Amino acid sequence: MNAQPNDLIRQTTDLSAEVTRPIPGSRKVHVQGSRSDLLVPMREIALSDTPKVFGADKNAPFTVYDTSGAYTDPDATIDLTAGLPPLRAAWIAERGDVEQLADLSSEFGRRRAVDPKLAHVRFARHRAPLRAKSGANVSQMHYAKRGIVTPEMEYIAIRENQKLEAIREAHLLKQHAGQDFGAAIQRLITPEFVRDEVARGRAIIPNNINHPESEPMIIGRNFLVKINANIGNSAVTSSIAEEVEKMVWSIRWGADTVMDLSTGKHIHETREWILRNSPVPIGTVPIYQALEKVDGRAEELTWELFRDTLIEQAEQGVDYFTIHAGVRLAYIPLTARRVTGIVSRGGSIMAKWCLAHHKESFLYTHFEEICDIMKAYDVAFSLGDGLRPGSIADANDAAQFGELETLGELTRIAWKHNVQTMIEGPGHVPMQLIKENMDKQLRECGEAPFYTLGPLTTDIAPGYDHITSAIGAAMIGWYGTAMLCYVTPKEHLGLPNKQDVRDGIITYKIAAHAADLAKGHPGAQARDNALSKARFEFRWQDQFNLGLDPEKAQEFHDETLPKDAHKQAHFCSMCGPNFCSMKITQDVRDFAAEQGISEQEALEQGMKAKAAEFREKGAEVYQPE
Amino acid sequence: MNAQPNDLIRQTTDLSAEVTRPIPGSRKVHVQGSRSDLLVPMREIALSDTPKVFGADKNAPFTVYDTSGAYTDPDATIDLTAGLPPLRAAWIAERGDVEQLADLSSEFGRRRAVDPKLAHVRFARHRAPLRAKSGANVSQMHYAKRGIVTPEMEYIAIRENQKLEAIREAHLLKQHAGQDFGAAIQRLITPEFVRDEVARGRAIIPNNINHPESEPMIIGRNFLVKINANIGNSAVTSSIAEEVEKMVWSIRWGADTVMDLSTGKHIHETREWILRNSPVPIGTVPIYQALEKVDGRAEELTWELFRDTLIEQAEQGVDYFTIHAGVRLAYIPLTARRVTGIVSRGGSIMAKWCLAHHKESFLYTHFEEICDIMKAYDVAFSLGDGLRPGSIADANDAAQFGELETLGELTRIAWKHNVQTMIEGPGHVPMQLIKENMDKQLRECGEAPFYTLGPLTTDIAPGYDHITSAIGAAMIGWYGTAMLCYVTPKEHLGLPNKQDVRDGIITYKIAAHAADLAKGHPGAQARDNALSKARFEFRWQDQFNLGLDPEKAQEFHDETLPKDAHKQAHFCSMCGPNFCSMKITQDVRDFAAEQGISEQEALEQGMKAKAAEFREKGAEVYQPE
Repeated sequence: MNAQPNDLIRQTTDLSAEVTRPIPGSRKVHVQGSRSDLLVPMREIALSDTPKVFGADKNAPFTVYDTSGAYTDPDATIDLTAGLPPLRAAWIAERGDVEQLADLSSEFGRRRAVDPKLAHVRFARHRAPLRAKSGANVSQMHYAKRGIVTPEMEYIAIRENQKLEAIREAHLLKQHAGQDFGAAIQRLITPEFVRDEVARGRAIIPNNINHPESEPMIIGRNFLVKINANIGNSAVTSSIAEEVEKMVWSIRWGADTVMDLSTGKHIHETREWILRNSPVPIGTVPIYQALEKVDGRAEELTWELFRDTLIEQAEQGVDYFTIHAGVRLAYIPLTARRVTGIVSRGGSIMAKWCLAHHKESFLYTHFEEICDIMKAYDVAFSLGDGLRPGSIADANDAAQFGELETLGELTRIAWKHNVQTMIEGPGHVPMQLIKENMDKQLRECGEAPFYTLGPLTTDIAPGYDHITSAIGAAMIGWYGTAMLCYVTPKEHLGLPNKQDVRDGIITYKIAAHAADLAKGHPGAQARDNALSKARFEFRWQDQFNLGLDPEKAQEFHDETLPKDAHKQAHFCSMCGPNFCSMKITQDVRDFAAEQGISEQEALEQGMKAKAAEFREKGAEVYQPE
Repeated sequence: MNAQPNDLIRQTTDLSAEVTRPIPGSRKVHVQGSRSDLLVPMREIALSDTPKVFGADKNAPFTVYDTSGAYTDPDATIDLTAGLPPLRAAWIAERGDVEQLADLSSEFGRRRAVDPKLAHVRFARHRAPLRAKSGANVSQMHYAKRGIVTPEMEYIAIRENQKLEAIREAHLLKQHAGQDFGAAIQRLITPEFVRDEVARGRAIIPNNINHPESEPMIIGRNFLVKINANIGNSAVTSSIAEEVEKMVWSIRWGADTVMDLSTGKHIHETREWILRNSPVPIGTVPIYQALEKVDGRAEELTWELFRDTLIEQAEQGVDYFTIHAGVRLAYIPLTARRVTGIVSRGGSIMAKWCLAHHKESFLYTHFEEICDIMKAYDVAFSLGDGLRPGSIADANDAAQFGELETLGELTRIAWKHNVQTMIEGPGHVPMQLIKENMDKQLRECGEAPFYTLGPLTTDIAPGYDHITSAIGAAMIGWYGTAMLCYVTPKEHLGLPNKQDVRDGIITYKIAAHAADLAKGHPGAQARDNALSKARFEFRWQDQFNLGLDPEKAQEFHDETLPKDAHKQAHFCSMCGPNFCSMKITQDVRDFAAEQGISEQEALEQGMKAKAAEFREKGAEVYQPE
């Protein structure tokens, strides 16, 4: 918190072993696309063979989506001061529509770059910023509408499939039919499908041309549900080093994007360190930094200052901007009777500005100019819900829904400019009102991806809001939300530490996966099936490793049955060694198989005769090796 | 784990301070009913006044449902060797339909009572067992069908309302309309409504005449959703002392009933200690103990042995029995192709018995005799789902649904005997298949209360199954489940310790409350509103105390802002002292109020003129005291 300048640098150039240790039982693999520089990383989990008593199956390795970047690759050299390799640089350059700038375009950025007082916290940039050539549009939506399949789109198609064809075969995929509420779920994702979804605005690929380090990913209701983790220091706590470490920690556990919500003194420098080292898209709320620039006096904000901030951040490489352009003057008084008023920080900043000037928000009035900036760098909109409800009482009210209608109007404007756009959503909503939110968003915003914070389904559990909100998140993900913004246990109480970040992310991976299952996303159930098979066969280590948090699972198991031998034991602590329900099922199977007939026939015809024999066999209770 | 006999006693006679310390900001109050011995305990949370800047409201105390019994009452003397006072003894006696037995009726019970080797672990009974007089039926359903409103029913009506009328007025209750899927939600619970619901089998009051210590509660879809916590030692771990402590710990956090699933050497004695000290209904799975009596050899189980076990436990005071009478011989082969076979311990015991003997289960064939025992003590059925799915893959299959149909048939038989009955449900079910479970249960079982374990909505998160299951639990509670059986983070991995029990219970209180809100349970939203108002007004201590876990909330807050002064601070760690969105809302309100007109008018007519003045006021950022 009170780290000295030199400490900041030292801390920043080394990650702790905690965030880089190998993920148990896993290795990094790459699937190559149509070109040699298109290598899509995945995490492969090795599985052991089924014990003889359960049938001695060979279990093929299982591949999972991997957000962790080079940090979990033992072959990678990590040097935070150099940053990650610019994976997409060649793809961006070869499109021929960008120019290298001689200097940063933003006044603020230029000032910071040469301020000697910042030398100790500054990331030493080694690349000139890029911008679209005059008149060009470098957004993926622009390419998509012109029928171009970019390398980013191909990368995403490979990534979304997670070697699904191989897994389908190896793991004898059995999956329940989903209920997709009108989504267009595909059996297999093709690059062309990615293009089509981006073209019609139903999905976005947030990847700023100045963030070539990012591994392309997609956010849309017809793809895997994604999650976002927020990090960021505040005036009260946290340092640059901690934030970089938290970013690496977040992607280790599965964050698909990370929002940097810093509000401290070195926002600009923190962001640079994060971007240069982040393989996932980074989002920000530029108005936070703009507010810092006017010392917290919202009424002193101006369009010019905000515009400079957008350009400053766009040239650093921020992939999506939360912009609260839907907080219109007319909606603000609708919040006066609320139990919790305006709880969005961005929303309240803009409300204050609107009230002070009695004017429509400059975000709204200058929206087309903002679009021009976005498309020059391919920054995606995350249209902020500044009037989201902050309590169950305020859910689905006139202020919230009024704003949502305006966000729909702004989406159409953004699309006119071929700017990729997603829509932020609540917040606090009781279960019975969640679907109304989703349906209205799909309708008003033409299926632009919805990106929701939870929603929390009750207000009464401070300290457990990762859970109150995971319930709502799973449901709204099922109904059609494309990305879920995590909530940590510290929500409403304090700033999350590492443990809170881990808890929040795993909780949201659960919600996202539960939603994928419910929608019937192809192959989603394969991992459940593989894990449950391992569980049934007492392949403990496989069960841990197939889970979302192998380390926690193993740690919990070891608390009750610490001995190593128990990892091979064909019983568990719940029933102990003398009785095991799994074993009885195996008896049922063996019995049915011995009959050489269907189970029903086994019962009706053959079983009686075999009963004596079975009784004898059944009396032998299976013992651990 | 390896405690010596004397340790067991010593530990059992003292509870740790951790489980009995006062709940912050709360006191125990009692609401008297129509008779002087009908005193319904509640927990009253004192609230502070609203700070002047937010309007200086007096905030009336808030009353919440209280499951914690005498243990949180500083005026109560706790002596575990004496047990709790027999609250209901007079009510039971005055109905004139029970007789005191000279000795225990169960052979096993009699043997244990005089075994000198058990002296050191035995609870010294000081009451003779009760049983219905010959030909009498002492079940609450029996009374209800005869039009009698018992003191238990009146107690429940008062308890369910939680001083709702007072709270409605004091907290200006504003609540969203619910979606109740056909439930008969009442504005206020009357004793007559309790009776009617019990009479038609839509709710049960589990209270054995031999458990007069219990504080009556009700389980039914038209009442508050309840939760159950499982405790119990196993062959591998845990002692009597730990189990009593866990029971007290469970009810402290809000367990409405507790199931004792012990499988160790002193099951009988452990249960006696728990019952004599439990103010909540206790459930068991008698087949577990029966299996111990035949040294784990399921095929040696007999009806006679099981019958003796039922009577043994009924005379101790167990309030509900899980009985897996729906595991019919014909369903067993249907589990052979499952990914995880039979995962219910009770289900697999009965499956093994059925296969070994090639006979219909004795639980099924002797079901009416079981009913005769149940009604002689008012033990309720919890008809077990022995074939519940143990993985997403196995959800809603023929085995599960076949058994559910049989449970419907058994419900009708139990009702013929006026035996109170609830139905156990799964398990592992993906979100899109949950409603089918609920609807089928309501249809097959005539709206008998459903009591589900989760369901877990994905298999891929060992270590976090309290969360994978809370998602399903909240949803199925909304759809109509009456009681949710908790799942702890240790599910599938090990036996829960105290921290796991607390996490599991709070998680399930969240699910139950989210369900109450979604159903539109009258007054459910009052607590959310009160907490959110406290949050908005920076009444930190009130926010903590109104939450489900005040201690955790305070601890989390203190991690970021440890100073005492910060409990009064009108800002929080998320934005720091220099900018606060809550304050801006207050500006909006003040502004609207000053206009003396509606918010819309304020905007359209008055606001422009006031803008300059407001700008000046708005420039003052609110500072902490």
